[in-house]
Amino acid sequence: MEKSRLEQQFDFILEADKEKSIYRQTRLSNGVDRENDADHAWHMALMCILLSEYANEKIDVLRTVSMILIHDIVEIDAGDTYAYDKSALSTQRERELKAAGRLYNLLPPDQAKKLRALWDEFEEGKTPEARFARTLDNVQPAMLNSATDGVEWVNHRVRLSQILTRNKNTADGSAALWEYSYQHFIKPNVEKGRILGDVESL
Amino acid sequence: MEKSRLEQQFDFILEADKEKSIYRQTRLSNGVDRENDADHAWHMALMCILLSEYANEKIDVLRTVSMILIHDIVEIDAGDTYAYDKSALSTQRERELKAAGRLYNLLPPDQAKKLRALWDEFEEGKTPEARFARTLDNVQPAMLNSATDGVEWVNHRVRLSQILTRNKNTADGSAALWEYSYQHFIKPNVEKGRILGDVESL
Repeated sequence: MEKSRLEQQFDFILEADKEKSIYRQTRLSNGVDRENDADHAWHMALMCILLSEYANEKIDVLRTVSMILIHDIVEIDAGDTYAYDKSALSTQRERELKAAGRLYNLLPPDQAKKLRALWDEFEEGKTPEARFARTLDNVQPAMLNSATDGVEWVNHRVRLSQILTRNKNTADGSAALWEYSYQHFIKPNVEKGRILGDVESL
Repeated sequence: MEKSRLEQQFDFILEADKEKSIYRQTRLSNGVDRENDADHAWHMALMCILLSEYANEKIDVLRTVSMILIHDIVEIDAGDTYAYDKSALSTQRERELKAAGRLYNLLPPDQAKKLRALWDEFEEGKTPEARFARTLDNVQPAMLNSATDGVEWVNHRVRLSQILTRNKNTADGSAALWEYSYQHFIKPNVEKGRILGDVESL
């Protein structure tokens, strides 16, 4: 028997529950526990609602929040890829495309298409909404890394040049949030030696 | 020196991180780990975006998602109150009001007022948005309890009459989602004896 629309929707919603068990490198502000993907998406969505006034271009907040809520769903199959893990990064796109093909298609066709398009938009980062979502995706972990005395930067011996490369488009979504992140979260941790300072001047 | 607007916003955003360490009675679909408040809010927000078509009345989806994202912030100070814990329920309102007074006021005044009003609206449950958010707040844990073979219903010896009292307004936000929740998540677990069946007929 074919599944009803609502059954298909609940199939996806229940499968999405697994995102709560995908752990990131980032630690929570308590400095001990790691953050999971659902925590991260919730935090970014909250930031989007509170900080949309700083977007460089006017954004549709609901579209941006929707994009944020689903941007890591693919990690249910593909796992989290640490921002500074070269080897994992080289296979990330392939793993995530396969995951997107399976996961979004649990939904009724119209919603599968809509969510997949939102994820593609996030990945491409070419609309004001995607640019702002990607800014938050970088600012949120910087905030938590800084709040935990840079423990993950220290553990992974992260260099400033790596952080700047990772953040090369962060100002494109919001110059104000990149400036805040750099001044409050990154620079003080370079000065304290928690981020290895391999860039001469900024 | 007075804090800048953005500093006040980040004070709140960092404090909100603690919501990820407030654990609920509900277990994740893996049947082992418990769900935290941020997981729960993320899952409800995702459901809101996918299921708004089933709201009894037309809702503003962004308002509803915003309400959902912040509805449990007070639990950072007040803790989670289990739906069937009579003693904790008797002090819940007082504890949560005190928490709301502290937490939302970390924000700049305009946003403090806006988020507090959204939380009050959720608590009162008198607008279409609040009714729908409250429907999801009940349907989401029922889905997870059912997916984990009703382990939390069994552990707490929950009776059908308690569930029906808890859900007396669930149909007000969405008759379709209450019907689905009852037929798919609740009724089968009464039949299997995981929910104690003290109600004659339904």
